Amino acid sequence: MLIGAIDGGGTKVLTAVMTEAGAIKAQKCASVPTSNPALYFARCVEMLRECATEAGIYLEDLAGVGVSLPAMTDGRDRVLGSPSAGWGAFSVRPLLVASLGVGSDRVFIENDVNACALAELRFAKGVDNFLWMTVSTGIGGAVVADGRLIHGASFCAGELGHIKVEFERPRPCGCGGCGCLEAHASGTAIGRLAREAGLDADAKQCEALAMKGDPVARAVFAQAGRHIGRALAMTANVLNPERFYIGGGVAHALSLLLPSIQEEFACGTLPQCREVVIEQTKLGYEAALFGAAATCLDGLGKGKVDRL
Amino acid sequence: MLIGAIDGGGTKVLTAVMTEAGAIKAQKCASVPTSNPALYFARCVEMLRECATEAGIYLEDLAGVGVSLPAMTDGRDRVLGSPSAGWGAFSVRPLLVASLGVGSDRVFIENDVNACALAELRFAKGVDNFLWMTVSTGIGGAVVADGRLIHGASFCAGELGHIKVEFERPRPCGCGGCGCLEAHASGTAIGRLAREAGLDADAKQCEALAMKGDPVARAVFAQAGRHIGRALAMTANVLNPERFYIGGGVAHALSLLLPSIQEEFACGTLPQCREVVIEQTKLGYEAALFGAAATCLDGLGKGKVDRL
Repeated sequence: MLIGAIDGGGTKVLTAVMTEAGAIKAQKCASVPTSNPALYFARCVEMLRECATEAGIYLEDLAGVGVSLPAMTDGRDRVLGSPSAGWGAFSVRPLLVASLGVGSDRVFIENDVNACALAELRFAKGVDNFLWMTVSTGIGGAVVADGRLIHGASFCAGELGHIKVEFERPRPCGCGGCGCLEAHASGTAIGRLAREAGLDADAKQCEALAMKGDPVARAVFAQAGRHIGRALAMTANVLNPERFYIGGGVAHALSLLLPSIQEEFACGTLPQCREVVIEQTKLGYEAALFGAAATCLDGLGKGKVDRL
Repeated sequence: MLIGAIDGGGTKVLTAVMTEAGAIKAQKCASVPTSNPALYFARCVEMLRECATEAGIYLEDLAGVGVSLPAMTDGRDRVLGSPSAGWGAFSVRPLLVASLGVGSDRVFIENDVNACALAELRFAKGVDNFLWMTVSTGIGGAVVADGRLIHGASFCAGELGHIKVEFERPRPCGCGGCGCLEAHASGTAIGRLAREAGLDADAKQCEALAMKGDPVARAVFAQAGRHIGRALAMTANVLNPERFYIGGGVAHALSLLLPSIQEEFACGTLPQCREVVIEQTKLGYEAALFGAAATCLDGLGKGKVDRL
């Protein structure tokens, strides 16, 4: 059985044809503008068709197609909106089904962070209770509990970036609130902390300085780590996960964040909820592509496999 | 189809024979000491046998039996421990199966707070995403997400009482940590706040004073409410629930807590996670008894029904 995977990013699109076990038969990558959704998804289908040709099959032979998108979705068919892609609400299936030639009951969409979590659940030698946190410009998250991705009442579960972690000196957040994790520990926040500490550096440069041992840069990461630790502790008491996977650009600096994350985490959790491994995802650059495949397999009702 | 329900409390036991729809055919209540688990469960079976006789059936005719216990459990068969009942770890089934005459695959146990949440899920005109919070001497909780009770990696999900809600002036908690919700908003904490405010009153007396309009007593509840609001906001961003059910003795004072809960809740949540109804459970005194029945029906794989 072969499936199609589309990782529709805000600036680039990855597509692949792969097996149920996650072995890639063909893969394409291209920059695709998001401004016109119809053209965007037409280009996605075209790229997937090239993958199918390379894999020696027709698109219609695919058992299903999964699509991961930088958007809030209803976990079924609808995009509810995407500030990063400039999208409002629309149905994705009509833009895909005709040109794909795959039955509309075999096309599945998912938010990209949720898709990454599904990829961990399905393809990594994973666990059934974990949280995924993407720390990048902003902070997003996903919740897997007792073996299932949690969507919540209006498909908005996993907003880890907006957990309040600072009450004494809360900073304003892009969401309109203040004291949110995103305002204290995202890549943007780390850059701002660095400049406030007198460094002429963004998050990436601050990371390089800290890796070289610069004490001011290290203190910036320690402070961000404390706030991440607070948020993880709160979720650990509520959900009793076994693991936290950290993805996104800032995940490369996990070794700088980890000591203060762990200190704050231990303070904030009950002993029976404290046994949690915090690690960088091993899925890497293609996490959301495997996430699209996992979304498809989930939709088709296929069980978990080990790929890594 | 008739099922058996045992609400095994720390001081009293309720048993009932009821229909799948939650109609009670017979019910018993008695004080039973927990000191000897074998005797405790023998007495539970005896009480359930009296219910069966009253309902005109034999125990063996029951389709299954659900047991709710004031203990951590593995959600299947084992009690992991109960400080309140003075229990260590043991298997419950062997203590029940022989005397019940019901197949061991038809006996199901659950923690009492989780059982209450299952009762809301199954018997109330409920929703699929909610949190249950028992505010009593301590604070316990349970999580239902996308229509299922969440157990977590080591069956400890739902520890809402130990979410850190105070970082500036954290109070020590019974768990060994400090700043926990339980240390700032449980019945015990409310009594302590009242005494610190110069009132000669425990939580219940403070409630009575506040109901009469005493401004000091009202301020005590406002402060506890703010901390509850913080904890609920954090969980709302992570789980996107539709409802919070508040149970336990302090739930009677919900009207005193609600204004400050809602103020803090609105501050701490993303707009798309803010539409949550906070209300007292309608299941009342028999919540855990219906929870035992819901545990049984869940174990037998029966679907949801509307009782209320």
